[in-house]
Amino acid sequence: MSGGSRFGEKVLPSRAMSDDLTTLVTGLAERAKEAARVLATASTEKKDAVLRRAAEALRGEPGDRVLEANARDMVAAADMGLSKAMLDRLKLDRERLDGVADGVDQVASLPDPVGSVVEERVLDNGLRVSKMRAPLGLIGIIYESRPNVTADAASLCLKSGNAVLLRGGKEAFNSNTAIAEIFTEALKAEGLPPESVTLLPTTDRQATLVMIGLDGIVDMVIPRGGEGLIRFVAEHARVPVIQHYKGVCHVFVDRSANHDMALDIALNAKVQRPGVCNSMETLLVDESIAPTFLPKLGAAMSAEGVEIRADDRAASHLNGVKRASDEDWDTEYLDLILNVGVVDGIDDALKHVAKHGSNHTEAIVTKDEVNANRWLREVDASLVLVNASTRFNDGFALGLGAEIGISTTKLHAYGPMGLAELCTLKWVGQGEGQVRQ
Amino acid sequence: MSGGSRFGEKVLPSRAMSDDLTTLVTGLAERAKEAARVLATASTEKKDAVLRRAAEALRGEPGDRVLEANARDMVAAADMGLSKAMLDRLKLDRERLDGVADGVDQVASLPDPVGSVVEERVLDNGLRVSKMRAPLGLIGIIYESRPNVTADAASLCLKSGNAVLLRGGKEAFNSNTAIAEIFTEALKAEGLPPESVTLLPTTDRQATLVMIGLDGIVDMVIPRGGEGLIRFVAEHARVPVIQHYKGVCHVFVDRSANHDMALDIALNAKVQRPGVCNSMETLLVDESIAPTFLPKLGAAMSAEGVEIRADDRAASHLNGVKRASDEDWDTEYLDLILNVGVVDGIDDALKHVAKHGSNHTEAIVTKDEVNANRWLREVDASLVLVNASTRFNDGFALGLGAEIGISTTKLHAYGPMGLAELCTLKWVGQGEGQVRQ
Repeated sequence: MSGGSRFGEKVLPSRAMSDDLTTLVTGLAERAKEAARVLATASTEKKDAVLRRAAEALRGEPGDRVLEANARDMVAAADMGLSKAMLDRLKLDRERLDGVADGVDQVASLPDPVGSVVEERVLDNGLRVSKMRAPLGLIGIIYESRPNVTADAASLCLKSGNAVLLRGGKEAFNSNTAIAEIFTEALKAEGLPPESVTLLPTTDRQATLVMIGLDGIVDMVIPRGGEGLIRFVAEHARVPVIQHYKGVCHVFVDRSANHDMALDIALNAKVQRPGVCNSMETLLVDESIAPTFLPKLGAAMSAEGVEIRADDRAASHLNGVKRASDEDWDTEYLDLILNVGVVDGIDDALKHVAKHGSNHTEAIVTKDEVNANRWLREVDASLVLVNASTRFNDGFALGLGAEIGISTTKLHAYGPMGLAELCTLKWVGQGEGQVRQ
Repeated sequence: MSGGSRFGEKVLPSRAMSDDLTTLVTGLAERAKEAARVLATASTEKKDAVLRRAAEALRGEPGDRVLEANARDMVAAADMGLSKAMLDRLKLDRERLDGVADGVDQVASLPDPVGSVVEERVLDNGLRVSKMRAPLGLIGIIYESRPNVTADAASLCLKSGNAVLLRGGKEAFNSNTAIAEIFTEALKAEGLPPESVTLLPTTDRQATLVMIGLDGIVDMVIPRGGEGLIRFVAEHARVPVIQHYKGVCHVFVDRSANHDMALDIALNAKVQRPGVCNSMETLLVDESIAPTFLPKLGAAMSAEGVEIRADDRAASHLNGVKRASDEDWDTEYLDLILNVGVVDGIDDALKHVAKHGSNHTEAIVTKDEVNANRWLREVDASLVLVNASTRFNDGFALGLGAEIGISTTKLHAYGPMGLAELCTLKWVGQGEGQVRQ
């Protein structure tokens, strides 16, 4: 009979280990949560002082320790046979580390979200009501090979008054440990609890499972990495997860579009940085302008080395291009490959995007106000654009100053998450003795 | 060896049933999700017409069918031996049903949140950026014996452009079915998909498990009911859950408080409606004013029939009161019982609230601006009040017009959830050809 698993002796050691890991991770998380309570009411000055101190350390001698640790990680990673791209993501040098320090300083210079007040009004009974930003508590970040995430996540969480529980990638363990130490030392030096930045001392998958099961201790988990990691976290978490799945972003060139503008936007969206989630994977064009627009698009993309995969109608206006397969329309290439399809007007384009889009970024190029408004209203994506490149979907480009990721889940935050999105909004009421009638 | 469960023949029928239920619930949810896509772009006029039509039906002959169905539920419930309080929650009569209809009309008269724009600004490159409210999609509501929740939830979800999947209590099954039918008929009459309001045709717990496991189909689940129901949903859900646990609300009477104001607020918070979550369970008083304030409080509470349970210091200023047990400080009485404790100033009060509070509603009575601000900043609760009764924590009292519940979870929404909280905020960008540099 299938489904009935039996416990054998062989399972016992792993259960025992798992118990140890549970105790270890739970203990660390509980102490980090205690730290979060202190951090929640820390002054802006104190938090900024920690960040400036950490940035300075990254630029100085403790930064050299990070580089040494990273060199050890690089040797081990090369031995493990990591790909060139993976090794490049892992690598830190003085220039990159100074860049990380600059990022930390930049977060210090952003306004403190905690205590800021929105939506103020006075009720008929005189009660002054508003909403005030407050930290979430303890935020878990689960990431892969980039060690700079340790510093980015720590600084964004600290500035927003949250403690952070970090689980980095195995390959970057030494680098992450050295960077986290810089933050715990800066916290100690400023009299804030060093447990506010806690890096798990193990990259065991079992430890991750414990961490994402700590309902009531960990307030939110953000997985940063490939789709596999995000699905694993989302499927096993008992705590809320902010997900950022792939970006299959579209540009729809409406019949009224300015062709030059559409070409500019398409080229920027595809080739300026093809390896990121907000680059375009599919261009849709209204059938009425396909004969005039597509040859220009084909030439421009070809000049940039972009491979086009087209549907039948588009292919008839493009020279020697491949046919797109069914899967191609759902693929995040992160590469110089572009699907091109012809649609029968905006309804057809909306239908295509609803079916193949990933709730990430969707742009229309149009001069038609009705179609522009329909696009903005009807497309379900974290950023919906009229006459602009999909590449604008990031916290820096949208003016948040920094970001911890781009949420493609609609709850809590949709789109780039800055300091405000690492907070909750609590209600605040100020009265002169008001009671309920 | 413990933990290894064996499958026997007896389990097979239930597994088969469970497969049928999975197919049934998943199919209904998928059709409701399809309806959500249509509803998301329905006009305000259309949605309001559905609500006004449903309200009219509740007041007319279809409403009589609801009353007949409710009468059948009442008979069955009496046979099941339900308590008087449970029977009262279940009961509908003409007056109550007219009240339900009024509620539906009231939601129709509220502004449509969908498409409303906030946080508009223009970036340096001229890109106009803002956030636009958009429906979440398909919202699951799991509730117990009150049939009016069917109408409340349906109208709030419809107005905010969301489809709703309802799982009501077993006792109210006939009443809920009749109310849901009124909504599906109104949707049909206005040309909107009737599946926008879908009541599960079973109250089997297995069906609930399937429903809260539909990640990617159900966008959010709100359990409305007792702590047991909420914990069950939170523990088993694979979809995001908005939790509303118990309200253990405090009033802290600071040393600078106006005694008359403190008495008014305390009485209102405790006795105006003791059976609701935003009533006060514990009063804390600064030790310096305990000798003068507590005798007045004791007399006033006693006159209202309130039983006081005090700590040692408070008891010394109160006549013949019980001692509070350790558990009492964490208990939501929902009754005319009040814990009274003496604290050593605001730090001690903050510590007590952090330990025993439930992130619901916490009030301070004070004339001291420093302490007022500390309270607002440092207390972690969905509504934090200065000089006002805890009873203000509800959507109507805070001016939202209506509410679907009060969230005590910090993600997405904290506090009363109105129409805006049933929406997400997507980013919107309008340009004239802007590309990323």
